[in-house]
Amino acid sequence: MSDISQLVIPRGFRFGATKAGLKASGRTDFAVIVADAPASAAAAFTANRVSAAPLQVDKEHLRATGGRVRVVAINAGNANCAVGQAGLDAARATCAAAAEVFGCAVNEVFPSSTGIIGVPLPAEKLIAVMPELAARIGSESDHFQQVAQAIITTDTVDKTAFARIDVNGAEVRIAATCKGAGMIHPQLVPHATMLVYVMTDADVEPAVLQVYLNDAIELSFNRISVDGDTSTNDTVLLLASGASGAKIETGNAEFAAALQQVCTSLAKQVVADGEGITHVVELRIEGAASDADALKAAKAIAHSPLVKTAWAGNDPNWGRLMAAVGYSGAEIDPEKIDIWFGEQRICRNGGRAEEFDEADAHAYLQQAEFSITIQLNQGEGKCTFWTTDLTAEYVHINADYST
Amino acid sequence: MSDISQLVIPRGFRFGATKAGLKASGRTDFAVIVADAPASAAAAFTANRVSAAPLQVDKEHLRATGGRVRVVAINAGNANCAVGQAGLDAARATCAAAAEVFGCAVNEVFPSSTGIIGVPLPAEKLIAVMPELAARIGSESDHFQQVAQAIITTDTVDKTAFARIDVNGAEVRIAATCKGAGMIHPQLVPHATMLVYVMTDADVEPAVLQVYLNDAIELSFNRISVDGDTSTNDTVLLLASGASGAKIETGNAEFAAALQQVCTSLAKQVVADGEGITHVVELRIEGAASDADALKAAKAIAHSPLVKTAWAGNDPNWGRLMAAVGYSGAEIDPEKIDIWFGEQRICRNGGRAEEFDEADAHAYLQQAEFSITIQLNQGEGKCTFWTTDLTAEYVHINADYST
Repeated sequence: MSDISQLVIPRGFRFGATKAGLKASGRTDFAVIVADAPASAAAAFTANRVSAAPLQVDKEHLRATGGRVRVVAINAGNANCAVGQAGLDAARATCAAAAEVFGCAVNEVFPSSTGIIGVPLPAEKLIAVMPELAARIGSESDHFQQVAQAIITTDTVDKTAFARIDVNGAEVRIAATCKGAGMIHPQLVPHATMLVYVMTDADVEPAVLQVYLNDAIELSFNRISVDGDTSTNDTVLLLASGASGAKIETGNAEFAAALQQVCTSLAKQVVADGEGITHVVELRIEGAASDADALKAAKAIAHSPLVKTAWAGNDPNWGRLMAAVGYSGAEIDPEKIDIWFGEQRICRNGGRAEEFDEADAHAYLQQAEFSITIQLNQGEGKCTFWTTDLTAEYVHINADYST
Repeated sequence: MSDISQLVIPRGFRFGATKAGLKASGRTDFAVIVADAPASAAAAFTANRVSAAPLQVDKEHLRATGGRVRVVAINAGNANCAVGQAGLDAARATCAAAAEVFGCAVNEVFPSSTGIIGVPLPAEKLIAVMPELAARIGSESDHFQQVAQAIITTDTVDKTAFARIDVNGAEVRIAATCKGAGMIHPQLVPHATMLVYVMTDADVEPAVLQVYLNDAIELSFNRISVDGDTSTNDTVLLLASGASGAKIETGNAEFAAALQQVCTSLAKQVVADGEGITHVVELRIEGAASDADALKAAKAIAHSPLVKTAWAGNDPNWGRLMAAVGYSGAEIDPEKIDIWFGEQRICRNGGRAEEFDEADAHAYLQQAEFSITIQLNQGEGKCTFWTTDLTAEYVHINADYST
């Protein structure tokens, strides 16, 4: 995406990354996003009651500033979570150093961390490299890509998404990057270790920005799951520099759609990079008693080890789908359920469809991406949800332990 | 257990099994338990809204008879689930044949099925072998073991448990068998593909028997999970022949304890035979705001792929436990959480305990069975829950597909 990204990096931001020595791999692990002037900020954080120290600091700072951010300081390799007071101390020390180096107020700094839980974050390593990093941040596509690279952990690729819209003759740009591959089942509040940073040069008040962000999250990051584990560090941050000069008020459908597109693109990239996965599955639940019920059914399927292992084997064992829907808590009548794999009908009225051809279904499920539609015939509720299979490789990645 | 079991097979029952040709392996797959006279019956069934045809027939029959059973007819290799009207027809045809062969009313027959979902059950295969089977059922330990063998599917061992108590000078015997290894997360109502049959020669009215069964289930089968998938076929049946002559009324603590012991033993055997597992984990949640909260925390841990894969690698990554407790929905304060692996303290006040020795913890987790205690320091709620690790072998077992 480097060809297009050059044209769509939002104005008013500079980016950069360096090596602070946190990743065992020796790769870049500390990144900053610096707004030329305080940017409007909207954010959403994990619903996990165990949440990382930087998230507490972020919430304090956003409250204190009324939603203004100058510097985002992101480290990978350590989640700065479940380490007690030491975690808050490390996050605050990082903010203090960033404020001095980048010339802003301490509460204009937004710290983020991702990596192992329960190990103290050596903030001094971040602080030591900060001046060098500050000296070479920039506003080009390459600088933006440095951030995308530095924040990944078990991800196999970096993840970015871009959009441009015209607002009364002014070009508004949106660029976003995120990381996440395992411990992926975001339940963001206001509504992981998924970290998402979305930058725009639109001019938007923080309160208005938050509404746009909430709407975009609900149908993107809150609609994916890799392993059903909700992280302690999930964060989505949307910054608006205003540098385009285009003012966005509430209800701009085009801006909402562009933001939605960027968030959905990143959400799908997270799923596609899920740990050890071999299939991306789009679940379409239709005819549920309510949208909430549709989501219950989707999540039960997305979290069922038996369903996910069947997918790993390209196995059209639709009985496991039925079982998962059955215990999902959604209002259902088994005799009314219809199931399709892509365009192939598999199940009609809760039983095997006459036209179900096992070989055809097996072939369909061998694709890297496929869709499953479940029609509950209860009402008008529906949802689209993206998830993955569960492979032996996932187990190897997460069971691998060396002392 | 064959030495002791000879002495504890409850009087008033005969048992047997044969090959009906349902299992691809060619092993015995059809079993009967026949009471000499109508036995008092109490039962519990899966909470899954997709439930197998025999469960519907069982409920109808128990209602019609007021809780009396003469013949339990159990097939393995086919769940008789999600096949529409054909499923009910197959279950009813089996009952009609059993009533004729064993000389009882149709609604005194209790059919059970376990195996693949969504494939019609060929009842004619069961009916064909029934007369031969009826001719050689018996009341010895060997006959009982035939049932235990025939009902297993992906189980690697058969599972039995026995107890004897003295009731006013009369000996009361309890013998039980069950099957289950995958799709194990029973949520039984009144409160899978777990099938449990408990026989006693105590003399107990059906309504009283149901209370004993409910209490025993709540702390045994409803406290285990292998993969978090709640089956469509889970059934627990408790039959009392009365042949001991010992009348048991409500509130007999000794009978309740013996029943509890038998059910807990079987529940642990199911977990120990979980598909692909290498560790059995006893979770002790203490100091929860309520028992219900303790159970929420236990289930979140037991269903977390990241926790379960860490166990597979003997990895003392307690941060994953913290994350799971955090999203469990239980009332917690992260700063108050203490964690022990066996006797080793790992976490104090939500942070790494000073005495945490990673090598020692790793060694402890290498054991086939270990316990983890999590003290939430919120109140008096607690629970004990048994679960397993998640291995690559589990994935292989459930992803293996051959057409």
